[in-house]
Parts: sequence; structure tokens; C-alpha cells
Amino acid sequence: MIKQKGILFVLSGPSGVGKGTVRKSLFEKDTNLKYSISMTTRAMRQGEEEGVDYFFRSKDEFETMIEEGRMLEYAQYVGNYYGTPKQYVEEMIELGHDVFLEIEVQGALQVKENYPQGVFIFLIPPSLEELKNRIIDRGTETEDLILNRLTEAKNEIEMMDKYDYVVVNDNIEEAVSRVQSIVVSEHCKRERVAKEYKAILEGENK
Amino acid sequence: MIKQKGILFVLSGPSGVGKGTVRKSLFEKDTNLKYSISMTTRAMRQGEEEGVDYFFRSKDEFETMIEEGRMLEYAQYVGNYYGTPKQYVEEMIELGHDVFLEIEVQGALQVKENYPQGVFIFLIPPSLEELKNRIIDRGTETEDLILNRLTEAKNEIEMMDKYDYVVVNDNIEEAVSRVQSIVVSEHCKRERVAKEYKAILEGENK
Repeated sequence: MIKQKGILFVLSGPSGVGKGTVRKSLFEKDTNLKYSISMTTRAMRQGEEEGVDYFFRSKDEFETMIEEGRMLEYAQYVGNYYGTPKQYVEEMIELGHDVFLEIEVQGALQVKENYPQGVFIFLIPPSLEELKNRIIDRGTETEDLILNRLTEAKNEIEMMDKYDYVVVNDNIEEAVSRVQSIVVSEHCKRERVAKEYKAILEGENK
Repeated sequence: MIKQKGILFVLSGPSGVGKGTVRKSLFEKDTNLKYSISMTTRAMRQGEEEGVDYFFRSKDEFETMIEEGRMLEYAQYVGNYYGTPKQYVEEMIELGHDVFLEIEVQGALQVKENYPQGVFIFLIPPSLEELKNRIIDRGTETEDLILNRLTEAKNEIEMMDKYDYVVVNDNIEEAVSRVQSIVVSEHCKRERVAKEYKAILEGENK
């Protein structure tokens, strides 16, 4: 068979669109994907494991990694750093595993700058009305916050042009199946297959 | 939902690779694809229907269509013309149907010249050894013909670079499933979705 390197797939989209649900459902079906493990400076909680839930690092270590360009993306949240270390992703990809990263829009844009050969998938709601309903259904937001998040979502949707694929999340099963199709089809792209295949044929001709 | 135009998918590959089998199996599963109906100057046979098996035309009519640039591709075989009329494909695509065309390599390259916005899929054998076995298994060829066809296959495989996707036909079910993934994933490409989606959002904002 034709050996291929793995591919980094990045799933993003406006908050409230259902990225997490799609990711969970995808991982229940597809065991070939490796989930990209994040790095954080926050304290380890009970039940969490190093290298499983997060890579836990000190603030100094994290900042050194940022300076050395070893993060695909990072952000600060409530005084702690969270981010995606480059090394894990690159190692998995060299070994031929696909890596899957689910991340908010700003993070995805950082990944694209640092790893443009990734495949970027944008999850969208069927309509803004539907997105509003989903945010309201969470029941955790005040009316002002809902309006803020909708405005932010509209701005984020403008970022669509930076992505390779757009998947409508009208139905979880359908959305997951579309993402799975993108994974399969990316591996069939001629530029990923042709060189290796021709080398196999050359080998046979000897 | 987001309305999209249809897409022309062209499946090709060296002779003996199993294009016909993949196409038949695909059409048993996927009823959204329209099969592109060929045009011919050969006589209608018993049981055949105009516009179902072929569009039957006189030699004069066929040659007029060639002159007027109304064929996506054509070839002569045993004194008759065979080809793909542009109009049927364009009408289906305008109506939002995907059109599927299974064709040998020379024909596919003609289609690419006349309709570069199509999606071109190249079916390959897992190895030349396997292709040789498949040609021998048909049992209809002399040894010389088998060698000729293998040489031709090698030359045709060089044409791979003209294609968007390469699908290995190691197993019919797998190959069909890969083609189905390509169909789904092409419809998720950002450039096919973004403009229409933004128009929907603009509409909602009014």
C-alpha cells in the first residue's frame, strides 16, 4: 500500500455552533484520528493525567516554548496559558497518523499561520437564527451576552475565507459524516499520492 | 439550506483497472448522481432507448456538433462516433445535480480541456503486477496484447498529474467509498459554499 504522512485537520467555527459535539461524535467513530493534546499552565485537577488530558507545564516553561516558536497557537485565559505544542502534532504526522484539533476561531487562525499545510474546516450553523437559539438553549447567558456572542459569531463567520472547507451543522450525524468524507478525500488528493505511487511503480519496473 | 450547482465528476484510469465495476457499484448506492449519457452514430440495438442508453444521431449531425464545439469529448471506434454532449451535462449541473462520467484516459483529458471546472478522479491498480493479473483474468487477450496493454497502462499512469484525486482500487467497496467521500467533500469546499452562505446571512440581517 501507499504510505502517507498524516494530515493535521483543524475544526473551528463560531462559538455555539457545536464544535465539541461534532468532535466527540467523530472520535466515537474514527479511531485513526489522534486528538491533539493541549498544553496548559493551570494546576492538574484530580483524575487528570499528564499527556492525556493536558501537558502540564510551569508558566516559565510555557513562555520559553512560546519564545522558541514551539507552539502552534496559544492564548491566555483567567491567568493561565493554554496552547497546542508543535512537537506532538509533528511527531504523529511523521508516523502517518492524522491529528485532529478542535479550536476556536482565533486559535485556528494562529495554527494556519504556523502550519499552513493543515486542512482547515469551518463549522457553521444553518442560520444565525439557529445559532441564537442554540446559545439561548444553553441557558447560561444573559441577554446582553447573547447579543455580544451573536455579533462575535457574525465577525467570526467573516473568517470563513481562510478555511479550506465549510461544513453546515444542520444535523450532528450529517456534519460528522461530512468531516469524515473530508478526511478520506484529502488522502486521495493527487499531490499526496502521485509521488509515492510512481516510486512504487519504478520499483516494480526494476 | 444552501443551494449549490452540481459538479461534474470524471472517473478515469488505465484500462483493466476496474472503472466500470466501480461506477456500477457507485450507482447502486448513490441515487443523487446523474450518469452522463453518451451520443453515438451507431445503429440503435433492440431494447435500447433514445436518451437512456445513448443519444442516437446521424454521422452528419454528430460532425456538426463537433464543429460547433458542442461535445465535451469524442472518439471514433469501428467506424462510428462516440462522445459526450456538453448540453446534457450543463443542464443537469444548472439544476443542481452532480453528473458522473466514466471514461478512458484520452477522453478524460479532452473533457478536462473543455470543462476544467470538473473534478477528475484517477483510478489506479494497487500495483502493475495486480493490473497484469486483472488483464490476464479477463482471458480475452493474447500475450502480445497483454504486454501492449501494460505498456499503455504505464503511459496512462503518467497522466495522473492531470487529475485532482487518485483512488487506489485495491478493493471495490473501499474504492467506491473513497469516490463517495470525494463527492461529499467537494460540496464542502469553501469556494463552493461561502458566497451563497454569506448571501443567506445578509438576507437574515435585513
